Amino acid sequence: MAGYQAPLRDMRFVLHEVFAAERLWSRLPALAGTVDAATADAILEEAAKVTGELLTPLNRSGDEQGARWEAGVVHTPDGFREAYATYSGGGWVGLAGNPAYGGLGMPKMLAVQFEEMLYAANASFTLYSALTSGCCLALDAHADEALKRLYLPRLYSGEWAGTMCLTEAQAGSDLGLLRTRAEPQADGSYAISGSKIFITGGEHDLTENIVHLVLARLPDAPPSSRGISLFLVPKRLVGPDGSLGPHNALSCGALEHKMGIKASATCVMNFDGATGYLIGEPNKGLAAMFTMMNYERLSIGIQGLGCAEASYQSAVAYARERRQGRTPDGARRAEQATVPIIAHADVRRMLLTMKALTEGGRAFSTYVAQQLDLAKYANDTDKRRRAQALAALLTPVAKAFLTDTGLESCVHGQQVFGGHGYIREWGQEQLVRDVRIAQIYEGTNGIQAHDLLERKVVADGGAALRLFAEEIRAFADRPGNPRAGELLQALERLESVSAWLLERAAQEPALIGAAAVDYLHLLGYVAYAYMWLRMADTAQNRLADDDAFYGAKLATAQFYFAKLLPRIASLEAAIRAGSRPLYELTDEQF
Amino acid sequence: MAGYQAPLRDMRFVLHEVFAAERLWSRLPALAGTVDAATADAILEEAAKVTGELLTPLNRSGDEQGARWEAGVVHTPDGFREAYATYSGGGWVGLAGNPAYGGLGMPKMLAVQFEEMLYAANASFTLYSALTSGCCLALDAHADEALKRLYLPRLYSGEWAGTMCLTEAQAGSDLGLLRTRAEPQADGSYAISGSKIFITGGEHDLTENIVHLVLARLPDAPPSSRGISLFLVPKRLVGPDGSLGPHNALSCGALEHKMGIKASATCVMNFDGATGYLIGEPNKGLAAMFTMMNYERLSIGIQGLGCAEASYQSAVAYARERRQGRTPDGARRAEQATVPIIAHADVRRMLLTMKALTEGGRAFSTYVAQQLDLAKYANDTDKRRRAQALAALLTPVAKAFLTDTGLESCVHGQQVFGGHGYIREWGQEQLVRDVRIAQIYEGTNGIQAHDLLERKVVADGGAALRLFAEEIRAFADRPGNPRAGELLQALERLESVSAWLLERAAQEPALIGAAAVDYLHLLGYVAYAYMWLRMADTAQNRLADDDAFYGAKLATAQFYFAKLLPRIASLEAAIRAGSRPLYELTDEQF
Repeated sequence: MAGYQAPLRDMRFVLHEVFAAERLWSRLPALAGTVDAATADAILEEAAKVTGELLTPLNRSGDEQGARWEAGVVHTPDGFREAYATYSGGGWVGLAGNPAYGGLGMPKMLAVQFEEMLYAANASFTLYSALTSGCCLALDAHADEALKRLYLPRLYSGEWAGTMCLTEAQAGSDLGLLRTRAEPQADGSYAISGSKIFITGGEHDLTENIVHLVLARLPDAPPSSRGISLFLVPKRLVGPDGSLGPHNALSCGALEHKMGIKASATCVMNFDGATGYLIGEPNKGLAAMFTMMNYERLSIGIQGLGCAEASYQSAVAYARERRQGRTPDGARRAEQATVPIIAHADVRRMLLTMKALTEGGRAFSTYVAQQLDLAKYANDTDKRRRAQALAALLTPVAKAFLTDTGLESCVHGQQVFGGHGYIREWGQEQLVRDVRIAQIYEGTNGIQAHDLLERKVVADGGAALRLFAEEIRAFADRPGNPRAGELLQALERLESVSAWLLERAAQEPALIGAAAVDYLHLLGYVAYAYMWLRMADTAQNRLADDDAFYGAKLATAQFYFAKLLPRIASLEAAIRAGSRPLYELTDEQF
Repeated sequence: MAGYQAPLRDMRFVLHEVFAAERLWSRLPALAGTVDAATADAILEEAAKVTGELLTPLNRSGDEQGARWEAGVVHTPDGFREAYATYSGGGWVGLAGNPAYGGLGMPKMLAVQFEEMLYAANASFTLYSALTSGCCLALDAHADEALKRLYLPRLYSGEWAGTMCLTEAQAGSDLGLLRTRAEPQADGSYAISGSKIFITGGEHDLTENIVHLVLARLPDAPPSSRGISLFLVPKRLVGPDGSLGPHNALSCGALEHKMGIKASATCVMNFDGATGYLIGEPNKGLAAMFTMMNYERLSIGIQGLGCAEASYQSAVAYARERRQGRTPDGARRAEQATVPIIAHADVRRMLLTMKALTEGGRAFSTYVAQQLDLAKYANDTDKRRRAQALAALLTPVAKAFLTDTGLESCVHGQQVFGGHGYIREWGQEQLVRDVRIAQIYEGTNGIQAHDLLERKVVADGGAALRLFAEEIRAFADRPGNPRAGELLQALERLESVSAWLLERAAQEPALIGAAAVDYLHLLGYVAYAYMWLRMADTAQNRLADDDAFYGAKLATAQFYFAKLLPRIASLEAAIRAGSRPLYELTDEQF
């Protein structure tokens, strides 16, 4: 089987043709001198090489070998160290980083294409780098100038890596319960004590230092999530010139044994009076950490997308080669005893489901990235605010919908292989195991859905949703969109359900939790329908240029509207059934 | 965490209260003297002990250790040998076997409860025994008397184990492509040569002999599936007195490394002129094997059910203990800082989805087993034929729907655990890996769906489906069923879609393949709705006897109708979209 190849043609289609990225970039002063279409394409081509040649070959061996813990030291699988050195040496860690501190300042719209390649090639490897990028974002936004000058250049260069240390044994989804303490020291630093679990990349041998961002409580902090502060806690203490000093009082107590992403070190981290530095204001740590988490949430959504794309490519290749059975209209292929299984309707159904969800997801993640770029770089305050609102609304959708559909896609991709899909050497089962975590970490998809419905829809009375709906309606109302009617119907359904929820949420307190996941999926399918209409519109206009590529887009759009968008009917019915069916039995009656 | 406990109360409810098994058994002469309600309950209680105390403790260690191959010898994990000896010594392998050859002759309705316990406790262990039972069924139905006398008693006693050897590297779903040869020998036996893959229990150390049922071609056989014969090929040759002779010319070449069921030995089996004996008529091997496969298909459906039940029990226990967050109506529990997560609506949604699918599945598998018992034991030819038709219609549904919903349930059960669900020591991720194979083997769920729609619905013009519909309608029309209207609406939807498919299938050849999986799910949801109406009816009548148990049944029925049955709306829409959206792009355009 051929390994994963970055879908460069489709990425260029989304970036340049559907979203006209260069036109946008040329209007944003911070980006105008940094990137144009040619630069973007050169970066993507180089990224395709790095991911295809450097990281893909380490994916299965990394899974088989896993990360290993020995007396506090964590060994990554063979080849990871060398690959990480090459990778960070290429400047990839700082791709979207702040140029004032050594980042390359590339737009998020471009960075998400690269992230997709990374996760598709090797999800475990990618996590070391993704956490570092998130750590940089939080530092850039909230740390003081001295810390930024000391740490950011070495993180962007990949010399050092980053983590986020949130979860404790008793505090997972409910961070208000965390107990790690931070005692002020005479020199202005803090002594951090406590134990954190599920720390991705908490310890490893890829870099000479690791920068932990740790949530902890100051002595006088109020209880609950209003008393949490954020600290930078390096593995090795750092001199004012950036030189490495002694080991800090922290250690990795164990690695978790997991279903997948086995080459990613998931650590128990113990802080025993470790020296830390306050980031941002006291007791505002959760807000600061959310800078990082929002980044990670989109990134984890893209993990779902990347794994799905890798699974799709393998499944298509297998379905073209594997011959079993005949088609019902066997006469058409009468010269052959058997047909490749891609000829069978049910195999096409699975492949097209993957294709429609993956290409829809690629467009959607790029769209969310566009909002993030506008929120950061737009000249106009109104434009920034609008983009911020859309990014806030759609980030939980990107995280949860891309990963839920990512699992669905990987399960289809495994199924196409039949029995071979269950055998390790074919790689499809690893993708199912690896993608599964993306529905769980960085806030479970249930938490994402709750965030969406409660904080992003109900709390603002549906204002952000109206922005999104207006944009969709404006696009659908343009002449010449043959499927605009179906999109508008789906949108009306979403609006009607939203209005119903807004009206009832106050008097039915459990309704938000009861409806949240179905609602997120409903919004996700409508958002993808909008993406597919935009893609079909572009494809229709360019059909004469490349019939094969644009024809496939139009066919896949048709499939999406015919076979997948109808899922919203069942979601709507489940939402409107309300919360009562969940509370007709007591906890003991389960 | 408490380990798996067989849901005896619910099994008795289904068996005795919903389906009045004793009344049925007392009317069937072959069963009347064999089993009554008290015997059945005693067997189930003993079965609960065996599965809970003997097999559950070996489930995780078996997964960690796996089956190992060394120079052709397969070692099962520690404890499996001893457990298998105890298990077969208890007579469990022959529970439903033919009493004329040492089986216990218990009805399938009882046996499926036991199978559910087995798969819930330890799916890998269970496969060794399930294949043996299937092998016995095929021998009992098709072998000559001498072979039956020689082999069946030793298989029922568990001294020997059985396999089925179908798949070859180039012949999976399409068995017509198989190449293994059978040369007639002077003594009336055959020399079998060829290589089989994916052979469950092809080699192991649990029993002193293994009886392979092998599909192969006679020299003069027509090509395709019309030229396949079935042979009994023992690992060790057997003397006329049952004594073990020399090793036959067959060997295990390798074990597969799999996503799950790691303690089950999945073997490459090489036959090098091995001595075999014809079972049934020449070139009729596929039909004979289907005796076994139909049994295995229901059994594999029950694997989906058993894994889901095990996942559900763990998830409920965890959700009662794990405390995170507050409910929106926090006042109700104001004395507590946090609530157990079972109080959260989204956690209840996941648990109730599992509960409704699992209890619905338990009733449905028992219902299918009832048809199998009637098909075998009813006095009246018409009754036997009717039951045969229903069993044939519903076996592919049981296999595919119980395993598709089994994966859904296990994924929910894992999600309830949050990050801990992804960690091996908690056991939830193993259930996801173990249940996943059940959608693939014994005919992928796509193949099951094709079998259902083409052979069981379209081929007989919907006759078997009408039998099922008439029964549902007769039940729903009885007075006092508050949800009968919803069931009837769902049934009408199924009938209307079926009529549409019957009408169009001839002129749209790809329609069957395009619609099959969605159609199977649609039928599955309607069948479960029928099961839930029957269970609710029974529960309503007995509510005063045990408010907690029957009240939970009524509440779960309500949840099923409100939240899960509406899924049929989307399935119907996808079916009616037809096959065209699957063929608008060429194979190259994927």
